[in-house]
Amino acid sequence: MEITFELGYALDTFYFLICGVLVMWMAAGFTMLEAGLVRAKNTTEILTKNVALYAIASIMYMVCGYSIMYGGSDFVFFLDGITADGATGVAEDAATYAPAADFFFQVVFVATAMSIVSGAVAERMKLWSFLIFAVFLTAFIYPMEGSWTWGGEAVFGLYTLGDFGFSDFAGSGIVHMAGASAALAGVIVLGARKGKYGPDGKVNAIPGANLPMAALGTFILWMGWFGFNGGSVLATATVESANSVAVVFMNTNMAAAGGLVAALLLARALFGKADLTMALNGALAGLVAITAEPSTPTPLVAAVIGACGGLIVVGSILALDKFKIDDPVGAISVHGVVGLFGLLVVPLTNPAAKFGGQILGAATIFIWVFVTSLIVWMAIKAVMGVRVTDEEEFEGVDMSECGLEAYPDFTISR
Amino acid sequence: MEITFELGYALDTFYFLICGVLVMWMAAGFTMLEAGLVRAKNTTEILTKNVALYAIASIMYMVCGYSIMYGGSDFVFFLDGITADGATGVAEDAATYAPAADFFFQVVFVATAMSIVSGAVAERMKLWSFLIFAVFLTAFIYPMEGSWTWGGEAVFGLYTLGDFGFSDFAGSGIVHMAGASAALAGVIVLGARKGKYGPDGKVNAIPGANLPMAALGTFILWMGWFGFNGGSVLATATVESANSVAVVFMNTNMAAAGGLVAALLLARALFGKADLTMALNGALAGLVAITAEPSTPTPLVAAVIGACGGLIVVGSILALDKFKIDDPVGAISVHGVVGLFGLLVVPLTNPAAKFGGQILGAATIFIWVFVTSLIVWMAIKAVMGVRVTDEEEFEGVDMSECGLEAYPDFTISR
Amino acid sequence: MEITFELGYALDTFYFLICGVLVMWMAAGFTMLEAGLVRAKNTTEILTKNVALYAIASIMYMVCGYSIMYGGSDFVFFLDGITADGATGVAEDAATYAPAADFFFQVVFVATAMSIVSGAVAERMKLWSFLIFAVFLTAFIYPMEGSWTWGGEAVFGLYTLGDFGFSDFAGSGIVHMAGASAALAGVIVLGARKGKYGPDGKVNAIPGANLPMAALGTFILWMGWFGFNGGSVLATATVESANSVAVVFMNTNMAAAGGLVAALLLARALFGKADLTMALNGALAGLVAITAEPSTPTPLVAAVIGACGGLIVVGSILALDKFKIDDPVGAISVHGVVGLFGLLVVPLTNPAAKFGGQILGAATIFIWVFVTSLIVWMAIKAVMGVRVTDEEEFEGVDMSECGLEAYPDFTISR
Repeated sequence: MEITFELGYALDTFYFLICGVLVMWMAAGFTMLEAGLVRAKNTTEILTKNVALYAIASIMYMVCGYSIMYGGSDFVFFLDGITADGATGVAEDAATYAPAADFFFQVVFVATAMSIVSGAVAERMKLWSFLIFAVFLTAFIYPMEGSWTWGGEAVFGLYTLGDFGFSDFAGSGIVHMAGASAALAGVIVLGARKGKYGPDGKVNAIPGANLPMAALGTFILWMGWFGFNGGSVLATATVESANSVAVVFMNTNMAAAGGLVAALLLARALFGKADLTMALNGALAGLVAITAEPSTPTPLVAAVIGACGGLIVVGSILALDKFKIDDPVGAISVHGVVGLFGLLVVPLTNPAAKFGGQILGAATIFIWVFVTSLIVWMAIKAVMGVRVTDEEEFEGVDMSECGLEAYPDFTISR
Repeated sequence: MEITFELGYALDTFYFLICGVLVMWMAAGFTMLEAGLVRAKNTTEILTKNVALYAIASIMYMVCGYSIMYGGSDFVFFLDGITADGATGVAEDAATYAPAADFFFQVVFVATAMSIVSGAVAERMKLWSFLIFAVFLTAFIYPMEGSWTWGGEAVFGLYTLGDFGFSDFAGSGIVHMAGASAALAGVIVLGARKGKYGPDGKVNAIPGANLPMAALGTFILWMGWFGFNGGSVLATATVESANSVAVVFMNTNMAAAGGLVAALLLARALFGKADLTMALNGALAGLVAITAEPSTPTPLVAAVIGACGGLIVVGSILALDKFKIDDPVGAISVHGVVGLFGLLVVPLTNPAAKFGGQILGAATIFIWVFVTSLIVWMAIKAVMGVRVTDEEEFEGVDMSECGLEAYPDFTISR
Repeated sequence: MEITFELGYALDTFYFLICGVLVMWMAAGFTMLEAGLVRAKNTTEILTKNVALYAIASIMYMVCGYSIMYGGSDFVFFLDGITADGATGVAEDAATYAPAADFFFQVVFVATAMSIVSGAVAERMKLWSFLIFAVFLTAFIYPMEGSWTWGGEAVFGLYTLGDFGFSDFAGSGIVHMAGASAALAGVIVLGARKGKYGPDGKVNAIPGANLPMAALGTFILWMGWFGFNGGSVLATATVESANSVAVVFMNTNMAAAGGLVAALLLARALFGKADLTMALNGALAGLVAITAEPSTPTPLVAAVIGACGGLIVVGSILALDKFKIDDPVGAISVHGVVGLFGLLVVPLTNPAAKFGGQILGAATIFIWVFVTSLIVWMAIKAVMGVRVTDEEEFEGVDMSECGLEAYPDFTISR
């Protein structure tokens, strides 16, 4: 082989691996964010769910998810496609970087989708029911919709999204809205936390127990997102691709900044205070909004797209409470509502994307993930239940599910 | 283009982006450090300030800061210089790596300078007054002094620092001492926290509420500093530059290690105990001290320079309290006093730097940043005030400024 | 020089540095893990130990450790071998990447070995006794066994491990089991915490004070391990080495996932609950298990090896308590017992390794590190003592050793 080819191969592989590490790190970000935003008595359980779902996602995507998503017509089941010498069979044509790096980068995306669910169903779901759902989402539900989008397969053999101009650069829809759709189905099956909604329609705030953790989680996600979006250029070893990766990093940062400032200002206008949790959700909303197309906007436009995401997320969080959809961390608003927004604004800066295609893609993802998730959640409910008892919920799920308090040395007041 | 040129361009760009991510991560480090070192009742507010200042710095540097700092005589205002195809106009000659990567790497430095301020003014400053100051520092004050140093412009057209042998590799003065100068002005305008200094001259220790957070923040900063100093080599795609980057990583680590051990031992000699907060500030002081020239010392000399920084910071923290300059996290000592020390020792290992030039540069940076900051702080004080009421300070600024407690489930004793 | 050589040199150097940063980050992981798993009253001290040991390891490895480990017959003492221009003398033949990058990557490994010790001796050891032990381990004990393994020297001039087919890719034995051997010696000299073992043989659980910290620490270690194992390929600038690095990243992730799930399921079978601390130790056990050979297994086999590690660690933690070996964080089980397991399974996937060689290597490492550590611990005990008084242990070592509470604003219940 040409040595210049080898160097390009090596650089692209290293770039994939480092971006993958950053996305893996997002699992820690979701964990810290969610652990900070629930009550102290439900913290061990949310930690356990998050570390376990990451492990389950890794295993199930190896077992069959990756093959379903990228195996194409040469459908390869149960690991046949992945061998230790780096040849995956599945991605044989990916000869410009190591196949194992491709798998590594993809596997951390699945975990991201599943992490979105854990926050929304926090504080009242049975741990093992949640983990069983994680198996289905990461082994089948997500890989199927992934095969129709990034995998390029026709949806049930009927239509191909690419033909309609659907474009989702790093997964505002394919990852974030998908995760939020599964979360929404779960929340509907599960119901709201006791005491969240008063009999008179009053919405009771249930503040998170550890805001430094939540802020840390947001910073981790912000950092990890550079890998999430930057790695989705899929190459960096040429001037053109390197410029594209750099623009993506720059715009990802600007969108988060725009989202944070917009949400902070809107929250101040609405509540008169600098609401930290809204600011954090604003930053995440900015990141979700730019994820569908971070490579074409100017940095100013990226900041504006992010700012719109930040405004939308504040409105959405307030609106979902009106409908008594109880999402303790705002995940459905951040990843679902803003994920949809992100898809819809792609055509404004990327002429290759078409508005109709974006709507068709969003509808396909939402309907598939929501309906299959609803079926799985209801089946789990029928077989083993999804919700802890009222007493366990009142005492906190940490003791009933995990047998360990998160903060045993501290005097806890609720 | 030559494929070898493309590969070098791609590698340098990727190196800039990863170093930029590490510097961005320092924002989380400052946030955790400061959140750990304030009292529980002031934690939400310091978190909010830190996430918001990072977003504001990103936006203002995009709007005009980058143009002011690097635009030269072709003064480009309000984003004209930044376009989505990666060409910035401003840095057209930076043809060996992606212009957007240059912007990304620079923008995270501004946030670092501003992060230094937030700790020093903690626990008694109005949140919105602080954020308005952040706009001025990141849009104008820092970019102006940056244009005279890294930008190479003449100071008010009068003299050029480079002509006097001024050298500041990664910003002991340009970033750290600048941030500390703005902080000092703020602390003078603001005054000390209630109860910090007794009527009899007694200095009351006000310990931080969450030392694991503070330790985490220090580790994050230590990690991020590899990008801060390592990225400042500005290239890595040749043997010479790669060797330089590697030496910078090695020396950055050695200086932090030296600073930590020296501060730990001095604190033990002075107080008889292993004072964790002094050890953490010692590590940070070591990092600040080596930042002005991490590429020329041997690792042993780097450790010694860091150790001197560690000794100085302990003395400086004690001395500032004598002058009733109340800096809750020691930021003025770590970044200001040690930043100056870092500038002054550059000529010992780098013959291209001249002692007179270092003094002239330090004086230029300090006078400019301190005076302009003082004017802005006083203007903000006149218009909207800078300090919360005594009652708000007693109750903690979290409720008055943010409406959210940081640890609502925990029983807090002060 | 050829420009393609320069590019490969630069890429390999950058890869080493980034992997080194990830390993350095593991120091923060150990710190958070251990700070989360001890009681609130012993938290400041464990933080201080961890930050200080990292600094001490960096300094002592520079002073003589690196020379002992890699200096060979040209024994170079006290820094002679390390000069600022990047040439180390010690590693002159390492001409395919920057020598300073080699030192940087190696130095963070020493700190990892020492970090393992701090957790096992937590909550009752004198801080300064611990730090003096750190000097000996990082300056001499670890570098000696490192010289016999990765350094390729004959063990006391008698036999060369490589001749017997000993292979330890990234250090299951050389780093992890070595750290655990030193920890075991320390725990034996030190004795168990008061109240851990009842007079009737009852084992009292002493839960950790801050489980979100422990979970964060585990994620940090998981992330850092990509650098630990991935960097141990020692090159990435060719197709072959890039494929190898990618496989190592993939397998490292799969092993951690396997370990976590296996430990979680076994703990549920044994205790009926989803035990978070067992799950976290399971993930770490999976990582330790794969570290001896992450480049040859298929991802499925990697997950299975990790899962075996996860099962072993649960059994080992329960077994060590039977022998009243009190290890508050399970470090001896995770790094020692599973480290040995990791060594022993190498021949299953790597034909170049021989089972006899693995046993000889494990015995050599264990005997050397355990015996020398025991001598040093006993010498320290004789000179200055290793254990705090019963009263200090009851009150918590934070006040007696550091003079600072970790959580002074919080009401602590034990």
